[in-house]
Amino acid sequence: MRGEFDFIKALKSKLKPDSSLIGIGDDAAVINQNSELQTVISQDLLIEDIDFRRSWMPLNHLGRALGHKALAVSLSDIAAMGATPRYCLTSIGLPETVWRTEFIDEFYDSLLALARQHNTQLIGGDTSRSPDRIVIDCTVIGEIKRGQAVLRSTAKPSDLIFVSGSLGAAAAGLELLENGKRLSTGRTANPSLLTMDALIKRQLTPTPRVALGTHLARHNLASSMIDLSDGLAADLHHLCHASNTGALIDVARLPVAQTIHQLKTTRPPADLAIYGGEDYELLFTVAPADKHKIPAYFDDAPLTEIGIITEASESIAIKTGERTRPLKAKGFRHF
Amino acid sequence: MRGEFDFIKALKSKLKPDSSLIGIGDDAAVINQNSELQTVISQDLLIEDIDFRRSWMPLNHLGRALGHKALAVSLSDIAAMGATPRYCLTSIGLPETVWRTEFIDEFYDSLLALARQHNTQLIGGDTSRSPDRIVIDCTVIGEIKRGQAVLRSTAKPSDLIFVSGSLGAAAAGLELLENGKRLSTGRTANPSLLTMDALIKRQLTPTPRVALGTHLARHNLASSMIDLSDGLAADLHHLCHASNTGALIDVARLPVAQTIHQLKTTRPPADLAIYGGEDYELLFTVAPADKHKIPAYFDDAPLTEIGIITEASESIAIKTGERTRPLKAKGFRHF
Repeated sequence: MRGEFDFIKALKSKLKPDSSLIGIGDDAAVINQNSELQTVISQDLLIEDIDFRRSWMPLNHLGRALGHKALAVSLSDIAAMGATPRYCLTSIGLPETVWRTEFIDEFYDSLLALARQHNTQLIGGDTSRSPDRIVIDCTVIGEIKRGQAVLRSTAKPSDLIFVSGSLGAAAAGLELLENGKRLSTGRTANPSLLTMDALIKRQLTPTPRVALGTHLARHNLASSMIDLSDGLAADLHHLCHASNTGALIDVARLPVAQTIHQLKTTRPPADLAIYGGEDYELLFTVAPADKHKIPAYFDDAPLTEIGIITEASESIAIKTGERTRPLKAKGFRHF
Repeated sequence: MRGEFDFIKALKSKLKPDSSLIGIGDDAAVINQNSELQTVISQDLLIEDIDFRRSWMPLNHLGRALGHKALAVSLSDIAAMGATPRYCLTSIGLPETVWRTEFIDEFYDSLLALARQHNTQLIGGDTSRSPDRIVIDCTVIGEIKRGQAVLRSTAKPSDLIFVSGSLGAAAAGLELLENGKRLSTGRTANPSLLTMDALIKRQLTPTPRVALGTHLARHNLASSMIDLSDGLAADLHHLCHASNTGALIDVARLPVAQTIHQLKTTRPPADLAIYGGEDYELLFTVAPADKHKIPAYFDDAPLTEIGIITEASESIAIKTGERTRPLKAKGFRHF
């Protein structure tokens, strides 16, 4: 069966984008706004029982979590272009039983709280009935100085690969939820419950790295960038394919989320960090000459060098100790 | 239960739009792009078993119809602001069984064909798996000269009310589909089948009045405008509430679609024209002094004067012969 990425490639070949446009296929589309600015736009769909489950928590809490996540996911795409978010639109389809609850008030309160943090205005959208599942589509519109947008297609061999924050926590949180674990409702001092809560929150309420993305773009520090939504392995493949390069990642350097180690997960922590999706950290590449300009921390998030871009002929590989093997593109995909 | 329009009103009161913004509540949002142009954005959700049914036709035909309709509905919102569409993004959630068919190719071929007609470029979107129902969200971005956007909130008492095209055919087509009638597959000379085909096509593939909308805005001919998605009665209420006016419609003047008369429908033709939704015609108001500037036809669609804007105190009414009664806001609503 044809996969979604093949489909997008085929669709892209049907389009004849004009020169003002960096079209389908990057984290967001870029169009010219005026002689100084470009508009950057991203749109992301969340569907019940694909991206989240109602059984995870009470409906009002779910509304709160999804209001944050729907916007955060699209903000992360805008961040991955190095752009500054300005406006958002949200379409939401709700079953009548959900419409009668506090879900939608909690949803918008939470979405607007995150929007305010990023000086982003809600300007429109659509509200619809849905037969039985919640669906949410969120569009974020940002802006950036002309020519400053950081693409995923411009990495060069010898560039160093960096990642923000830590990896694997969102996937561990998803695993906990899928195994029936829930956020503890009250205050707890139980360290194991606190760890689980922290991981589940990383799944439900990711932090988009907006300030980091704009910082890297403004100072021209990143030669390419992508956000980690499908997982490090899958998204590194996207970046390398777009840039026509290979890559070599060093497992020992990966910033695996410490909290995962405190917990029994069914998959090894490094696997969650490599193949688990939805961390919404930024993966970016840096020319060797600019390495000294990358701080160890930005906004409390560590920036970690995890590997190097190589020639396309060397393919995409991962090194564990002395052993190097191809890095499979497995990770989240819809089809 | 709180209805969707009450919810949108409550949500709007939570927002603090800056002065550059005509926010939630009109057909589309308007933001400043540069010193000369404004950006106009609309987003519309279509959900299976709410907005369409898979049983209506084979999946490839359905893909073709929905590719047109998803874009047409948002183009119509842009037209209702008087703006020129430029870009679109489409998010689509598909069950795996649909993904395996020609649905998505037909969907995008049809969407791109309509987009080309309107010089509109597809620049992004999202593709997702959905558990069992098709969901589509389409965003259209247009532009307009600063200050030229035609709002729904600026009608004035004594303005004449015009409508484009004919009314009721889309609702009659929906009634046919819901009663088990289908598009005839081959060529037919049977007049009754041809009539049914024509009505069903008005439901499935509406024509957005883009050229008319931009013409009215460019020549400053419309004092207010809205597109007819929820139905004449409901949308006239939206316009009058936004403008703080009343209105008087003359039933005898309504351009009821002729094809409806050729067919037995369960509702009287005038009812379909007044309360049926999804014609995607433009309803606009014209100052008496500008009446002579409105042509009888524009792009083959008649432009018909159907009533007059009155003071808010006179409420929204409809005249049948000598009898005048309040026009109820009934029409399509999700909640």
